[in-house]
Amino acid sequence: MIKGHQTWVFDSKPVILASAAIGGPLESQSAIAKDFDMFHDDIWMGQDSFEKAEKKLLEEACETAIKKANLKKEDIQFFMSGDLINQIIPSSFTARTLGIPYLGLYGACSSSMEGLSIAALLIDSKFAQKVLTATSSHNAAAEKQYRYPTEYGAQKPPYAQWTVTGAGAAVLSNEGEGPRVVAATIGRVIDMGLSDPFNMGGAMAPAAVDTLEAHFRDLDIDPSEYDLIATGDLGRVGHPIAKELLERHGIKIPDEKFTDCGILIYKETQQVFSGGSGCACAATTTYGHLLNRMRRGELKKILVAATGALLSPMSYQQKESIPCICHAVAIEI
Amino acid sequence: MIKGHQTWVFDSKPVILASAAIGGPLESQSAIAKDFDMFHDDIWMGQDSFEKAEKKLLEEACETAIKKANLKKEDIQFFMSGDLINQIIPSSFTARTLGIPYLGLYGACSSSMEGLSIAALLIDSKFAQKVLTATSSHNAAAEKQYRYPTEYGAQKPPYAQWTVTGAGAAVLSNEGEGPRVVAATIGRVIDMGLSDPFNMGGAMAPAAVDTLEAHFRDLDIDPSEYDLIATGDLGRVGHPIAKELLERHGIKIPDEKFTDCGILIYKETQQVFSGGSGCACAATTTYGHLLNRMRRGELKKILVAATGALLSPMSYQQKESIPCICHAVAIEI
Repeated sequence: MIKGHQTWVFDSKPVILASAAIGGPLESQSAIAKDFDMFHDDIWMGQDSFEKAEKKLLEEACETAIKKANLKKEDIQFFMSGDLINQIIPSSFTARTLGIPYLGLYGACSSSMEGLSIAALLIDSKFAQKVLTATSSHNAAAEKQYRYPTEYGAQKPPYAQWTVTGAGAAVLSNEGEGPRVVAATIGRVIDMGLSDPFNMGGAMAPAAVDTLEAHFRDLDIDPSEYDLIATGDLGRVGHPIAKELLERHGIKIPDEKFTDCGILIYKETQQVFSGGSGCACAATTTYGHLLNRMRRGELKKILVAATGALLSPMSYQQKESIPCICHAVAIEI
Repeated sequence: MIKGHQTWVFDSKPVILASAAIGGPLESQSAIAKDFDMFHDDIWMGQDSFEKAEKKLLEEACETAIKKANLKKEDIQFFMSGDLINQIIPSSFTARTLGIPYLGLYGACSSSMEGLSIAALLIDSKFAQKVLTATSSHNAAAEKQYRYPTEYGAQKPPYAQWTVTGAGAAVLSNEGEGPRVVAATIGRVIDMGLSDPFNMGGAMAPAAVDTLEAHFRDLDIDPSEYDLIATGDLGRVGHPIAKELLERHGIKIPDEKFTDCGILIYKETQQVFSGGSGCACAATTTYGHLLNRMRRGELKKILVAATGALLSPMSYQQKESIPCICHAVAIEI
């Protein structure tokens, strides 16, 4: 670790033994539906609250990932998880179900890559041999908490994004076969003064740019290192802003290898405003679609730069602008 | 790292270069007041909301710790912080002020030791040379969010606890002088079915016991290893329960070396029900009082087992019991 660097290089390249993605009804019709492990056809998932439904998604993602890794939960030493719900109750109640020593995280929609970074760190530093990391979001639970219950039928501007209903999980190991985590860049909080909570993509774009720049600078590489660089979740409004800002900073990423989880996940015909968002967006897109593409040999090395808007309804009501962050993880196979 | 173990042993023994504790008006009259670095004589701290007041406490704790370490914020590579407020906005806005790469955490009142564990891990694994970890709570902000605004004058049962208004921070380093972090035990979520959100101490006691047992078992040591073992924050109701449960499990800790941050912090004459609580309770007691006692040579090796109740007002309203956790960190000088 060199002073001033914010990138962790994992010499042992921890292995993603297995990963899982669980979705709701809208996700079952999404552009990457075939890469999910399971869907629910009802947003209640048989529960009596949306928060409990989200917990169920998260539990299923964890259990599916552990099963796909041919492990039992007793084999997993640490579980790190976070989500959008106040006091991250879906994560903490899932940790109760699993009974695995637990580190609760909060990075809003960057939580997936925050968790993957710390999980890889634990394996690489030999403090663990098997680690589980996961995150979730639920559209109706998030709307109810951050805006209005969906039953109110509140209108949204076209630059808003749609919170993904789903959960993603990954099991990391010090040995075995699979995609490997090679580096992680931990982001700083960037806040350019935007305060419109519907324009998260625009607010988060500079955070993605700051972390991507740091990643290339710390490792002394350029975008040609990767077959695919995915931000998440800037959507159709934020992603072009990130692209333009990067170019102004002298970093040109060819269109064909620069994408965004919020753009990738849904079909253009699905009514999701400017794209997907929520912790589950980058999580299901990465742990389902992108890792599957790697396993199929279509991609050899990718960089996932998950962005998070660290606001709360209260910080917005108190006239604060939106602090944003982005954590980037490099994965190769 | 041995399979089944949940304890990290830090061979390099990362150094706590400096630490700081900031408090509010009640804390300035507390039993450990002389170990705080600064007090505010008004709970608003010159801000227009309690959440912004809490952010100010956290910023001051961080800035004071960095200054006491004779460092500048540019010297710190990573900042890890969490708090009780929805979406941990005091932590994230402090991360914006500091501009240091940031990992947001959530462990309720165990957040101080969760942060210290990960900070020590980063130093020990050589992924960083200087790390800052902090946490905060604010009595009026917590009451407003978890129960009722304090202006309503709601009554509480005598077994309730008083949320500390304050913040604590520590700077960890790979070199230098000071108390050293030697091990950390990451807790599992334990939930014995208690659902009274006023009885946090009782709910959290079994989590403290589970983590303390794991700590002694993993390291093959007994309580005689330590000059002081402090749980935090079980208070006057929870602490005796933890003591009794430990004894039933065959672990006897002499009264004179077994204490609790929630009991230590306030004077018996202060009206705080059964003791202190909140992220700042274990943080200010450890980063102020206990580390100062070590620096004065009164204690050589201590174990701080910070407990957290991972409930939310919503999980309580949805009839859930209280999932609890405890992370324990061993410090020697």
